[in-house]
Amino acid sequence: MKKGQVTIRDIALKLKISISTVSRALRDSPEIKLETRKKVLAMAEKLNYTPNVVAQSLRVNKTKTLGIVVPQLASHFFASNISGIQDTAYSRGYNVMICQSNESFDQEKSDIRTLISSRVDGLLISLSRETSSYEHLDNLIEREIPFVLFDRIHEGLPVSTVTVDDSLGAYKVTKHLIGQGCRRIAFMSGPEEMYISKKRMAGYEKALDEYGMKVQNDLVKHSDLTENCTQILTQELLDLEEMPDAIFAINDPVAIDVMKFLKSRGLKIPADVALVGFTNMPISDALEPSLTTVDQPAYEMGKLAANNLLDQLMNPEDFEPQAIVLDTELIVRKSSQK
Amino acid sequence: MKKGQVTIRDIALKLKISISTVSRALRDSPEIKLETRKKVLAMAEKLNYTPNVVAQSLRVNKTKTLGIVVPQLASHFFASNISGIQDTAYSRGYNVMICQSNESFDQEKSDIRTLISSRVDGLLISLSRETSSYEHLDNLIEREIPFVLFDRIHEGLPVSTVTVDDSLGAYKVTKHLIGQGCRRIAFMSGPEEMYISKKRMAGYEKALDEYGMKVQNDLVKHSDLTENCTQILTQELLDLEEMPDAIFAINDPVAIDVMKFLKSRGLKIPADVALVGFTNMPISDALEPSLTTVDQPAYEMGKLAANNLLDQLMNPEDFEPQAIVLDTELIVRKSSQK
Repeated sequence: MKKGQVTIRDIALKLKISISTVSRALRDSPEIKLETRKKVLAMAEKLNYTPNVVAQSLRVNKTKTLGIVVPQLASHFFASNISGIQDTAYSRGYNVMICQSNESFDQEKSDIRTLISSRVDGLLISLSRETSSYEHLDNLIEREIPFVLFDRIHEGLPVSTVTVDDSLGAYKVTKHLIGQGCRRIAFMSGPEEMYISKKRMAGYEKALDEYGMKVQNDLVKHSDLTENCTQILTQELLDLEEMPDAIFAINDPVAIDVMKFLKSRGLKIPADVALVGFTNMPISDALEPSLTTVDQPAYEMGKLAANNLLDQLMNPEDFEPQAIVLDTELIVRKSSQK
Repeated sequence: MKKGQVTIRDIALKLKISISTVSRALRDSPEIKLETRKKVLAMAEKLNYTPNVVAQSLRVNKTKTLGIVVPQLASHFFASNISGIQDTAYSRGYNVMICQSNESFDQEKSDIRTLISSRVDGLLISLSRETSSYEHLDNLIEREIPFVLFDRIHEGLPVSTVTVDDSLGAYKVTKHLIGQGCRRIAFMSGPEEMYISKKRMAGYEKALDEYGMKVQNDLVKHSDLTENCTQILTQELLDLEEMPDAIFAINDPVAIDVMKFLKSRGLKIPADVALVGFTNMPISDALEPSLTTVDQPAYEMGKLAANNLLDQLMNPEDFEPQAIVLDTELIVRKSSQK
């Protein structure tokens, strides 16, 4: 981007609105009020703003490399996302470089900077559990660096997103547990602000609602996703005056930590406490008891995210952000069958 | 490296010997015959060769980024290596970028090229299961790009390596199984040419030898490390006239595939067949039966590899390649106790 050129940041500053609002207004997004759109267009004209897409499509020195940022690599789910991205990228002549944020917001920002310095052509990002402000993403939009968010996303940005229907998946789990006769279903969730925590909570709540049950605050726990924290919170559930008869864990790694802890306390799964995860790690059917879980098409998510980003790189002019939502499947195994 | 400058490749070409021999001869390595060392030094003088270390240490445009190449990311072992590397790198002011070769030799070469184009300051590499020629590594040595090999290494290059004592680990496993009364101990190995296959085979053989037992070829299988291949080979073991009474799997992921398969055939572990892995994945004690395995200090390996590489970057003049070998610990659990 040439110095002195007017950018969407300039328009945003003048109007005291966010960069993403300006970006969406310039795309005529119906999510932005007509009045705002008019203001943005007027300011764009006044400042003589010209969109940078042509410059971008003509940009030389393409590296044919995509950058990936994931919260963690020691996760079958993210490793499968990456394989889907990588296979797709290779088949279209691109390499990939990967950074992990280790669930740290600062590291996530640093990873993005590192990949940008390596002149990747675009980014695929899944946000850390700590990320709750989004200036670093606004900055990418402002610099017109194409990126796609997947799994741990932030809604409301003018970029493509790829997720599973987290809410529906959690709804299916909760309904299944109710069908097994469970009446005190605990939800071992992740950090409250995390996208998947919010969505899966919504599905859990919806199913309880349908059966005339209310969310009980003492049955909802927010683990930071470490084994230690999950163990402490599981103990809290066991210490309740009336113990839960089922635990729905936000993902399979957390479910495995809960399973180990329940076993160490001599509790029988599912007889004493039913247990359900979310991910369908390959290991989940080798556990004793085999783990009921929700199958997430992680590889497919990676493929779709990569294809979306590459389409955007090929045809920046025609690109419209998409919110791609994939379906999930409940896999009933022994851990939840009372 | 300036064009026209004499490199170790020129010396190697003139003498018709390998680049790594030249490199080691120039370092006065005792592994190289005195005669060869003299020849190399004479040719270096004749061609007016000057080592590039000063240029390298003064090289501007350092990116403060390390590149990592691992065979696969969906592996707790490599993910832990990476965490060790990353934590060490960050604490010393470096970022890391990661590529996976997907166990493909071609992809490994392409990954290295991608990272070099991104101008990483150095590389940490664990070789793919397919890699059995090493020109791409010679090429790095020739270009004086510092790198360290870890876990899946190739011996005989003038670079640092970090491994565990694979042979001793496998020896401990085999001796333990013999102590449990097992007399037909199968070894479900990896590809024959892979470093860890060879080393772990040597330890298996040594223990059998000590007890006056011979390696029986029909009890040694070479899986390509996929679940499908491991299942087929396990079936072959079960189809033998006399079934094995124990299976030692090259790593925990392979052991888990064997475990699933034995269970699916209605066999009891350890009563019918004892089972041991190698890695100590966190999941291995949540399995039924819990898995006897060898604990590899993966995180520590990553730390040592990163520190070695960073020391080399800080002080290229004083650097001498090291072969760092870490000890392992046999963790006896239920899967092997007859």
